[in-house]
Amino acid sequence: MPMLDRPEILVNCAVSADGRLAYAGGRRARLSGPADLARVQWIRADVDGILVGVGTVLADDPSLRVHWEAIDRPKGRSPKRIVVDSNGRTPPGARVLDGSIPTIVAVSERCTRAFPPEIQVVRAGTDRVDLARLFAELRRQGMRKLLVEGGGEILASVLAGGLVDRMTVFVAPVVIGGASAPPMVRGVDLAAGRPSVPLTFVTAEPIDDGVVLTYVPARPSEAPARPLSGSTHPDASKGPE
Amino acid sequence: MPMLDRPEILVNCAVSADGRLAYAGGRRARLSGPADLARVQWIRADVDGILVGVGTVLADDPSLRVHWEAIDRPKGRSPKRIVVDSNGRTPPGARVLDGSIPTIVAVSERCTRAFPPEIQVVRAGTDRVDLARLFAELRRQGMRKLLVEGGGEILASVLAGGLVDRMTVFVAPVVIGGASAPPMVRGVDLAAGRPSVPLTFVTAEPIDDGVVLTYVPARPSEAPARPLSGSTHPDASKGPE
Repeated sequence: MPMLDRPEILVNCAVSADGRLAYAGGRRARLSGPADLARVQWIRADVDGILVGVGTVLADDPSLRVHWEAIDRPKGRSPKRIVVDSNGRTPPGARVLDGSIPTIVAVSERCTRAFPPEIQVVRAGTDRVDLARLFAELRRQGMRKLLVEGGGEILASVLAGGLVDRMTVFVAPVVIGGASAPPMVRGVDLAAGRPSVPLTFVTAEPIDDGVVLTYVPARPSEAPARPLSGSTHPDASKGPE
Repeated sequence: MPMLDRPEILVNCAVSADGRLAYAGGRRARLSGPADLARVQWIRADVDGILVGVGTVLADDPSLRVHWEAIDRPKGRSPKRIVVDSNGRTPPGARVLDGSIPTIVAVSERCTRAFPPEIQVVRAGTDRVDLARLFAELRRQGMRKLLVEGGGEILASVLAGGLVDRMTVFVAPVVIGGASAPPMVRGVDLAAGRPSVPLTFVTAEPIDDGVVLTYVPARPSEAPARPLSGSTHPDASKGPE
């Protein structure tokens, strides 16, 4: 297997049964239960870095640390925290800037924001952070495994860029719906020629009151055609009746 | 068990791994494979009516018939077709109006549209179809079991109205993302006091290249609190760090 020019990328997130990351207007939802939260800590403890987009920092102010006590495991090395923040919008008081854990903020070349000296700033991309370039730099710095926790814009970028090696999604037994609750994957509308990113479904594992679905990238031979001319209804495939 | 004043309501739909019903701009996606399409025919063959919203008619022009040949089952009675169409927007040439199967169009009281004589028009609700009233009328006409197939507006209405007895969702191993691909459940943003509809997760069954998730309504004792003050990240629950 050829060495990747990037870390292995794991994606993990929690969504409602209808694929929303949060409530209307982005208000935070606790979707996972205790067993799923512990599952996430095990993944965090196993990676070299935990990455989120600045939108997640602004909405949730996560600490992005391993809660070792939650997994009854001796405290180990903390994974680095990485914030993708093209325009330098991370608030000065954000937990990720508290200096307690090695932290990288990835910005675009046009970002002029100054960060505290203990924060490593990586410039990758002219107007927006180029994730492939960022990941190559993280690999060069020795990272072998990276956990991407969201939000919807970052997930869109890594999925559309073919930069995901494994994705786990906790699906909570609630429906949120509505017009403004953030979807799991946002990004720009994909082109008509490539309206979706194919994956391979691996397992469904019940946990807490929901289920964790695991996906890996589809190999070309495994990705069935999902034509635009099809239909969400079984009827339309039959032609005129 | 008290008799319901409505039919038993089953919901079935197919979504991408990120909870979208179709591609960008509503372009149709064939998300199910052959085994899941057959599963849907088995459900259709077992109900007294198949209901969709007019949005689904406009987007997909479904025939809403049982494809008996797909399930190797002797042809039985066709379930009635029901279109929820508050303002009478069903196109005259739509398959559901072809007269081949008993069909009901549910409209609001202010709808002035004329329909062909073989179509049964049910008026329920002043400006919009009142689904609880419609369902009571369908039960009065003898329907015991109804399949609701979407789209996102109808799903929002039946879920928010507590009118769902069982929901099956085929989750396809593709990500669609973007800003305009229709979400599984749309509707209006729910109020802050009730930001989500709790369900109980029952089973995850792999089928074709995806998985079918089955839910039933949450009983009050089973619905865990999912507070607004929580977070999609495990971190935030720990308080200031």
